[in-house]
Amino acid sequence: MAHSGDHKIKRLKHLNEALETGALAQVRRILNNGLQSADVAHLLESSPPKERKLLWDLIDEENEGEVLQYLSDDIQAWILTSMSAQEVANVMADLETDDVVDLLQNLPNTLTQEVLTSMDTQDRHRVESVLSYDEDSAGGLMNTDTITVRPDITLEVVLRYLRRHRSLPDMTDNLLVVSRRDEFIGILPINKLLVSDPDSTVREVMITDDVIVIRADLPETEVAKLFERHDLISAPVVDAHGRLVGRITIDDVVDVIREEADHSLMSMAGLDEDEDTFAPALRTSKSRAVWLGINLLTAFLASAVIGMFQGTIEQIVALAVLMPIVASMGGVAGSQTLTLVIRAQALGHIDKSNASWLLNRELIVGLINGLLWAAVIAVVTLFWFHDGRIALIIGCAIIINLLAAALSGAMLPMVLKRFGIDPALAGSVVLTTITDVVGFLSFLGLATAFYR
Amino acid sequence: MAHSGDHKIKRLKHLNEALETGALAQVRRILNNGLQSADVAHLLESSPPKERKLLWDLIDEENEGEVLQYLSDDIQAWILTSMSAQEVANVMADLETDDVVDLLQNLPNTLTQEVLTSMDTQDRHRVESVLSYDEDSAGGLMNTDTITVRPDITLEVVLRYLRRHRSLPDMTDNLLVVSRRDEFIGILPINKLLVSDPDSTVREVMITDDVIVIRADLPETEVAKLFERHDLISAPVVDAHGRLVGRITIDDVVDVIREEADHSLMSMAGLDEDEDTFAPALRTSKSRAVWLGINLLTAFLASAVIGMFQGTIEQIVALAVLMPIVASMGGVAGSQTLTLVIRAQALGHIDKSNASWLLNRELIVGLINGLLWAAVIAVVTLFWFHDGRIALIIGCAIIINLLAAALSGAMLPMVLKRFGIDPALAGSVVLTTITDVVGFLSFLGLATAFYR
Repeated sequence: MAHSGDHKIKRLKHLNEALETGALAQVRRILNNGLQSADVAHLLESSPPKERKLLWDLIDEENEGEVLQYLSDDIQAWILTSMSAQEVANVMADLETDDVVDLLQNLPNTLTQEVLTSMDTQDRHRVESVLSYDEDSAGGLMNTDTITVRPDITLEVVLRYLRRHRSLPDMTDNLLVVSRRDEFIGILPINKLLVSDPDSTVREVMITDDVIVIRADLPETEVAKLFERHDLISAPVVDAHGRLVGRITIDDVVDVIREEADHSLMSMAGLDEDEDTFAPALRTSKSRAVWLGINLLTAFLASAVIGMFQGTIEQIVALAVLMPIVASMGGVAGSQTLTLVIRAQALGHIDKSNASWLLNRELIVGLINGLLWAAVIAVVTLFWFHDGRIALIIGCAIIINLLAAALSGAMLPMVLKRFGIDPALAGSVVLTTITDVVGFLSFLGLATAFYR
Repeated sequence: MAHSGDHKIKRLKHLNEALETGALAQVRRILNNGLQSADVAHLLESSPPKERKLLWDLIDEENEGEVLQYLSDDIQAWILTSMSAQEVANVMADLETDDVVDLLQNLPNTLTQEVLTSMDTQDRHRVESVLSYDEDSAGGLMNTDTITVRPDITLEVVLRYLRRHRSLPDMTDNLLVVSRRDEFIGILPINKLLVSDPDSTVREVMITDDVIVIRADLPETEVAKLFERHDLISAPVVDAHGRLVGRITIDDVVDVIREEADHSLMSMAGLDEDEDTFAPALRTSKSRAVWLGINLLTAFLASAVIGMFQGTIEQIVALAVLMPIVASMGGVAGSQTLTLVIRAQALGHIDKSNASWLLNRELIVGLINGLLWAAVIAVVTLFWFHDGRIALIIGCAIIINLLAAALSGAMLPMVLKRFGIDPALAGSVVLTTITDVVGFLSFLGLATAFYR
């Protein structure tokens, strides 16, 4: 019994000591017998590259598959590409279909073909049927380990059938009732099976109303919403003809939810949600450089705007001192609106009927906060530079930029989404460009007009 | 049967049409009979305040509780505070203990007491036992609807007992085996109960090894990690003496995961993760103003730094044109590191043993990208202003600022966490302050030194 992981922490402490003293035999024992696969995977994910390689080599071959399925995509790919097709096939022999498919999707295509041919026929057919669906659809997420029953048999027969099987797939909360042609009819909850009269037929006990049935081509984010909204443990997946092709379980949906949420957070900093925390320096530098380069272009654009007003700045150097304030306040206000709208999109809160209300609300908020902070900044400026005109100018620029920030923060995610561009990724760059340009342009432009 | 929500979309369309034409009787019918509670809640969350009030008033009293539990905290509070204690108690009568507790936690304390006294004794005791734990702990998350069995009875007896009950609580995948003194001993999976010989005793079939047992004082984020890592549907909760006090189910854990992930995203923009997308303008303005004010302080700090170098800028106005580039590149690089480290903290990837490796890696990445982009920016500057010295100075400033960004992006979350400050909330403000100040200071400082 593992009390809230107390034992596990002790075992991990032993492991760390063993690693430091180089007692590899002991490390091997702890890795393969002392810890569960999920914990070994977590340990690998928390290790820098050298330690990670060392630990992986100490894991017994029969445990490799179990550990692999808990690793993130980046690290799976790193391990799998160093294996031969036969080794990969061996590792996958004990895994469930959906986990095998997840692993295969991280392999180069040629290797996938090799692995498939070295599998036994039944397994290969199962894997190929899941592989035929889009990776990000219900079909790509599903498992083929359904237990199906016909509507006309009695519960007694079902119970006897289950006893002969001796074990049920994980997360089996419902048996699935299908017709002779495999068309999905309804569900028979295990809990109902337990408490009902064994002489009743499946048809009498099964549930057909308000059962959530998932089409194989439904995007996985929609699947996650259905699971969250209806508190599901598993749900049947059907093809376009209503035939049962598999089922989706909550453990895989939790991964989708985690990835989706991570995606927004990481994308806004130009990072990939699968990013390995302990990737080597060179690989990390490369992936980050692209984002820095894109941001440099927008920074040069802002500089070009400032460059247009060099003459004015030379006359009144206070403008150079104050201009970052205008840009920064616009950027912060805009990112608040942007983040809220991106989250609302992810939760499915926004549609045609309420988008204009939201835009309107954001503009009012922009105006209120614009007036408030324009006043504060103008007063500070007045005391700092003893120049009423600059105070007035910066106040106006703040109001203009906060309105621009509200407008672009609210519109950008909707516009980008319509063009099929990920708002979480592109939104923050475009937004900063707008608030920088509008900020510098309004402040320096107004100053040039006033002082000419 | 609801095929991927096809019917639901049709019903929602009808609802929208009915709302527009003002056919309130029809809206009432759809709300109370056509849609599931979770969908009604989603509709309320996606509606601006006026429509939301209108819709809520059309929901029948007996459905209010069901709908309430699916709403986010902000909106629950808004609805509950407009009710009397007796109305609240009525609404809660049909809900499960954990949902009642969730609702109560959103009420003012005096109202909570009133509601408790108007409940029946058994319900009140259950609710009070859960309320006694911290809201963010396993105890606050758990439900008290456990089904317990003794180890010495046969499965036949268990099955007969369950049949008498006719229904099991939602998400019951295990019966919980306890001693005479309610101490937790092990689990009896429903699926094992189904496939095992009815004459065996519970003791023979139950599982005691590697069972995840959760202490009531474990923080809910740790509970979520255990559920994710071990693919749990439910887990028993015990008190400090090992006595069973309740169980936690995956549906509540999914909410924790969603909230936790939302928290990082929203906090980085100074927003609350419970923020109502359609809150009225005035309330929204107030909550955003605080964040803008904090950012204004840091912007003034950056301006003060620029102000120190007014003399130099007057001489060479190109500095004013170029200085935002130095600050912006530092801010972007820093936020990449910051986001990665905050995510890694949330995933439990970082501890003493690997923190220095990570800091080191980030510094190397900062150096590599610093050298790369310093060269690019220096070349562009040379062609733009035909001044080798400025090109050299901005190159050096970029390298300095990207190293400062790496250092602070990696250290800040760890330092803030040690002081009990939320890195997702405070991290980005402090980081921007550092990269702005270091950026302006190094660029303008070097320029002043070179040109003096």
